[in-house]
Amino acid sequence: MRRYAVLTEGKLDSIYAKTAHGVLRYRPGEVAVVVDSAFAGRTVREVLPSVDSSAPVVGSLREALPYAPNALLVGVATDGGHLPNAMRPAVLDAVAAGLDVVSGLHERLQDDVEIAAAAAQSGSVLFDVRVPPREVPLFQGRSRRPDQRVVLAVGSDCAVGKMTVMLEIERFALAAGARVAFAATGQTGIMIAGSGIAVDGVVSDFLTGAAEMLVDEALERGDVALVEGQGSVLHPAYAPVTVGLLYGCAPDALVLCHRPGSTTIAGFATSIPPLRELVRVHEDFLAYVKPARVLAIALDTSALDPNAADRAIFAAEAETGLPADDPVRNGGEKLWRAIETRRG
Amino acid sequence: MRRYAVLTEGKLDSIYAKTAHGVLRYRPGEVAVVVDSAFAGRTVREVLPSVDSSAPVVGSLREALPYAPNALLVGVATDGGHLPNAMRPAVLDAVAAGLDVVSGLHERLQDDVEIAAAAAQSGSVLFDVRVPPREVPLFQGRSRRPDQRVVLAVGSDCAVGKMTVMLEIERFALAAGARVAFAATGQTGIMIAGSGIAVDGVVSDFLTGAAEMLVDEALERGDVALVEGQGSVLHPAYAPVTVGLLYGCAPDALVLCHRPGSTTIAGFATSIPPLRELVRVHEDFLAYVKPARVLAIALDTSALDPNAADRAIFAAEAETGLPADDPVRNGGEKLWRAIETRRG
Repeated sequence: MRRYAVLTEGKLDSIYAKTAHGVLRYRPGEVAVVVDSAFAGRTVREVLPSVDSSAPVVGSLREALPYAPNALLVGVATDGGHLPNAMRPAVLDAVAAGLDVVSGLHERLQDDVEIAAAAAQSGSVLFDVRVPPREVPLFQGRSRRPDQRVVLAVGSDCAVGKMTVMLEIERFALAAGARVAFAATGQTGIMIAGSGIAVDGVVSDFLTGAAEMLVDEALERGDVALVEGQGSVLHPAYAPVTVGLLYGCAPDALVLCHRPGSTTIAGFATSIPPLRELVRVHEDFLAYVKPARVLAIALDTSALDPNAADRAIFAAEAETGLPADDPVRNGGEKLWRAIETRRG
Repeated sequence: MRRYAVLTEGKLDSIYAKTAHGVLRYRPGEVAVVVDSAFAGRTVREVLPSVDSSAPVVGSLREALPYAPNALLVGVATDGGHLPNAMRPAVLDAVAAGLDVVSGLHERLQDDVEIAAAAAQSGSVLFDVRVPPREVPLFQGRSRRPDQRVVLAVGSDCAVGKMTVMLEIERFALAAGARVAFAATGQTGIMIAGSGIAVDGVVSDFLTGAAEMLVDEALERGDVALVEGQGSVLHPAYAPVTVGLLYGCAPDALVLCHRPGSTTIAGFATSIPPLRELVRVHEDFLAYVKPARVLAIALDTSALDPNAADRAIFAAEAETGLPADDPVRNGGEKLWRAIETRRG
C-alpha cells in the first residue's frame, strides 16, 4: 500500500500540479502529506477547495517524514517534462531517507546521475511512469473490431478534464454494476489506475500500436473500455498524440470535453470553434478511418458558480443536441447513460 | 566521400528496399556495390529498370570488398524497424572488415550487443540515422510565421513518392537558380541529404517540435523549405507522424502525392477517397490551425506505360483543377512552377 508524500513545491494551486490534484482527488487514501513550502501549514482542502482531502501541507521533505510516507510522488507536469530545480532537494532528501520516488516527467529519474547514484546507495526504487513498455508493437488494426466497445475522451484543449471525466464515468458505471475498464494514457492516470501507458512518451511510429495495446488490455478487464484522452485534435503542439489515440484506439464513441468560455488553445493563438463545430470536426476526421460519434459533452465548470454551471450545461445541450454534464460536479451518471444507451 | 556497399539481402526489387532505391537514384556516385544474394551477378539497372545505376550486385559482403566500399548501408526499411536476420551476417562481416555501418532502422545497431562489441573491436563507426537529436524542444509556434515559405509533401498513403517528389522539385528549382532547401524527415532522405530528422523516431510529445526545428534549419539554408512528407493523414497506423509534420512545419503550401489506381491504404481496409476529396480533407484539417492550400498533385506513374501515365496526369488535373505531374518521369518543373507562382 502506497503512502505518498506528494511534491508540488510552489505549484500546489496551479495547473502544473494536475498530477497531484488527480491523485489527491481519486486516491486520497494514498496521500499522507504534501510537500510545498509556499502552502506549508495548511491542509490540501484549504488550498484547493475542490479537492476533498485533509492531507497536511509541509514545507520540506524532512517535515514530511513524521507522516510516515513510503514514497515520494513528483506531483507536477512541466512543459517539456523536466524536473524543476526547486524540486531537486526534496527528491534527493527522499532518496536519502530511503523513500521510493514516483515521477511522470519525461526527464527520467533513472537517467539523472546524481539521483540514480543516491538511489543505488539508499536502496530507493525510482519509478518513471512516463517510460513506455519496452516492446510496443506497430498498430495492427485489431482495435478496429466492429463489435468492440471503446469510448475515448477528446477535448477542445489540454487540461479540460479528459482523465477526470473518464474516472467519474468509471466510478458511476462500476457502482451501477457495469463492467467498464478505465485505460490510462497519461502519467497521472497511470498513478491513479496503477497501470497504463503514457502515450506521449512513446516513439511516434509506435503511438497507434501503444493505443491498440491499451485497448486490448482494457477489454480483458471489462466490456467497455473508457480511454483517457490526450491533447486536442486542434492543438498545434500535441495533436499528433490525440490522433494516435483516435486511430489507435479506434473508438466507437467519443465524449467531448471542454471548459466553457475557453476560446483559444492555451499558449497559442489557435481558436477553439463552437462546440457544435468541434463535434463535427471529430466525426469528419474519423469518418474515413473508423467512424465514431460524439455521444456526450463533458464540461469543466469548476470556475463557475452553480447557477452559471447549470446554464453552461444547458447551453451545451441546446447547441449540440447531445447530453451534457460536469461529472465532477454532478457525478458520472448522465454521461454514462448517454454511452450505455448507445451501447444497448 | 562515401562509397557504400548497399545491403538489401533478398529485397532489392521490393518496396522494402526503398532506402536503397532512394540512395541509388539520388546519390548514384556514392554506391560502389549492392549486396543481395537473390540478385547476384546482375547490375542494379537490370534488376530495377527505373534506377539508372550500373552498380554491380554481389552475393555476400566478402564479394563486395573488391569494390572498395568504405561503409555498409543497410538499404531496407522494415515494418517495426528490426534488422532482418538474413542481414546480420553481412553486417557482422562488414564490421569485421572495418567498414562503418549506416542504418535507418528503429532497432539501433549501437544497442545490438553483438554488433556493438564487434565494432568496438574493429573500430567501425555505427551510424543510426533514425535516432533523433538529443535535445528536441517542444513546439513553440515559431514555424507559424506568416511570411515563411514552407512546402510540405502529403500523400494518400505511405510510399507514394513524398520524398522523391520533393527531391525532384529541389533538383529543378536549384538548377533554375531558386534558393530552395530540402528538409529530410525520414531515414532515406537523411542518407541522401546528409542531414535531417527521422521524425517517426521522435517521442510523440516532441514530434511537432522536431518538425519546427527542421523548418528553422531549412530556412537558414534557403528561402523556400521543401519538406519531405511522411505517412498519410488517413493512415490508421502512421497518421500521427503526418499530423506532426502538418502542424509542426506549419506549411503554407502542400503538394499531394498519390499513386493512380490505389484505392485503399496498403495493409488496411481504409479507403482512399477521390483526389478532389483528399485535397479538401487536408485543407479542412489545417483550416483551424494554420491554413494552407494544396498547390499541385504529384503522381507516381512508375507502374504505367507513357500513354497511361499522361492520361492519369490529365485526369488528376481535370478532377482537382490543379497542376499535376509525375516529376520522376517528367522532371520537377511543372510542380515547381505551381509552387513558385503562388510564391510570387
